[in-house]
Amino acid sequence: VGGVTAFVDERSSLVALAHCVEPGDGVIGAHVRRRGAQETLARISRSADGLRQAAGLMARLDASRWERADERAAQVGARIVTRLDREWPSQLDDLEHAAPYALWVVGAADLRLIALRSVAIVGARSCSQYGENVARTWSALLVDEHWSVVSGGAFGIDSAAHRGALAADGVTVCVLAGGVDVPYPRAHDALIARIADEGLVISETPPGESVRRQRFLSRNRVIAAISRATLVVEAAERSGTIATARAATQMSRPVMAVPGPVTSPVSAGCHRMIRDGEAVLVSSSDEVMAHLDLGFAGRQGGAPPPAPRSPDEGRVLDALPARGSRSVDSVVAACGLAADTVIMCLGSLEVQGAVTNVGDGWRLVKR
Amino acid sequence: VGGVTAFVDERSSLVALAHCVEPGDGVIGAHVRRRGAQETLARISRSADGLRQAAGLMARLDASRWERADERAAQVGARIVTRLDREWPSQLDDLEHAAPYALWVVGAADLRLIALRSVAIVGARSCSQYGENVARTWSALLVDEHWSVVSGGAFGIDSAAHRGALAADGVTVCVLAGGVDVPYPRAHDALIARIADEGLVISETPPGESVRRQRFLSRNRVIAAISRATLVVEAAERSGTIATARAATQMSRPVMAVPGPVTSPVSAGCHRMIRDGEAVLVSSSDEVMAHLDLGFAGRQGGAPPPAPRSPDEGRVLDALPARGSRSVDSVVAACGLAADTVIMCLGSLEVQGAVTNVGDGWRLVKR
Repeated sequence: VGGVTAFVDERSSLVALAHCVEPGDGVIGAHVRRRGAQETLARISRSADGLRQAAGLMARLDASRWERADERAAQVGARIVTRLDREWPSQLDDLEHAAPYALWVVGAADLRLIALRSVAIVGARSCSQYGENVARTWSALLVDEHWSVVSGGAFGIDSAAHRGALAADGVTVCVLAGGVDVPYPRAHDALIARIADEGLVISETPPGESVRRQRFLSRNRVIAAISRATLVVEAAERSGTIATARAATQMSRPVMAVPGPVTSPVSAGCHRMIRDGEAVLVSSSDEVMAHLDLGFAGRQGGAPPPAPRSPDEGRVLDALPARGSRSVDSVVAACGLAADTVIMCLGSLEVQGAVTNVGDGWRLVKR
Repeated sequence: VGGVTAFVDERSSLVALAHCVEPGDGVIGAHVRRRGAQETLARISRSADGLRQAAGLMARLDASRWERADERAAQVGARIVTRLDREWPSQLDDLEHAAPYALWVVGAADLRLIALRSVAIVGARSCSQYGENVARTWSALLVDEHWSVVSGGAFGIDSAAHRGALAADGVTVCVLAGGVDVPYPRAHDALIARIADEGLVISETPPGESVRRQRFLSRNRVIAAISRATLVVEAAERSGTIATARAATQMSRPVMAVPGPVTSPVSAGCHRMIRDGEAVLVSSSDEVMAHLDLGFAGRQGGAPPPAPRSPDEGRVLDALPARGSRSVDSVVAACGLAADTVIMCLGSLEVQGAVTNVGDGWRLVKR
């Protein structure tokens, strides 16, 4: 099989898997977690381990142009982020066997940093005017408090959440079910382009890949995983939104739901989740933020809430130039702290209003 | 003091206390629970036990015409019910020191029986159209399932609940803060008169007594106590409605709340109670009834939910005439069961659709 010799390292193997394994396939995912991507691919290419779909996977891999994935990503303005890259949001590992192998990312912001203070706002496509208003206004209020808003770019609640964040000059993340160059729904291509300009558009499927029914469910689990909490504004029963909320719960993320009139079918899912204890009722963006802080407090390794400045934060501040900006790698080199620590400190300092992200670097905020 | 010699028995002593002690006075209530009404009154009349208010109480008692209370009640179409009377709803004893000494009752139905399958529907006076619709329609659906609806006759949610029950030919109970002959608010005197005709109007204050601020709070605790559960349709924060719900919780009654738009101030109290676990979210009358059944299941001595017919129920059925009706006392005499047992059986049989209440008696339902 042609591709075998090219699985030269773990990262390119992850990228290769992203080209042939359907998102959310837990069987291959389990192999990768146990043996790594390189070894899994080698076994697939030998049709080992009784992997019935091995031939199909190899055929699909051969048909893809995965070896030139970075080049092709650059052509559509994207970069590829795997768990071996600094920008990988570590909370994606909570997906375990169903974690993406790679993400295609379009946008200037740092996905890992953005994800550290992110909340998913999701809901019904056929939402009510009430739900649309709540999604738009709360999203704006959340980005005012330096939260980023993650959603799926769909009609209804999703796009209202994105638009609210954009209107307030915040960062919003759109997770697509197809390739980052395949805006879906098509009616939202201007919105998705604007999100790419001012925030992030991401996908676990390679450029050119179309949306498929199953991929929406897979995409929803990425939305739930990448965000610190999920807010359901409106949801019918047995909807994709409910699936997103369930995924968030399985990963111990707080799930919140907005109540509405009992006469509104699109509030029925929210009411059921609240009644059954699957979601906490929230009636204002302040209550959402109170819960987000609780979510942080309950997790190890989470970004710290705004707090007295630590010694590490002081070292990071000292490493930033008086004028102009500096890349994260350069700050790491200058202050002598681990990259993860620097990133956490920058996130915390940004919340405190001490530093700001300027595309490919960080600079001090003048007082 | 003139009245002392007239405290001839416990029942007349309870009636006397209802004429001089302000509703909900826990100090006198504690004395009564410990020593009985007769002994408490004797001590008050001797100004014993350091009861500072003894002189005031005696003055108030002397000024009242309590010795002729039954006569006066009859003049306004009422009867007086104390814990020594068969019609007393035993769940009022859950109020402990704050239990009423007596109730003035207007209406043909049996208060004890009605209270066995009752739900309080309460809420904001300045409710929304949405809340009014929910209160009216759910009230009608609940009486369709043989529940009676208890409320306070106030503007807004209260009157919508009463009207919904009346529209569905159900029994509704209006608990007044002043005397049963002092309809309040005045604008509702026609509504309250209709409730007296088709359901029950009750009060723990004697005829002629006016409403006072404190008496609304006392009245609310009677609403909560007499009902098996409390449904809050809309409530602002720090409202009398919230106090009713708290009283229900303190007596281990289920409390339910209806969600609404987060933009509606009169839903804020409901949302806060749901969020804090003080109320269960309900989004339909079916959910209300499911919770009412749960409430029964969790309580000792509650009315049984519809169930296979018991031997006692068979004896009660046998005691009813083939044609026409028979009073409870007459059924008791005929079947040889205790009055309490007969009442429970009649309530259960009514739920099963086997018997029906015809004002002052019961008759078999023809199939």
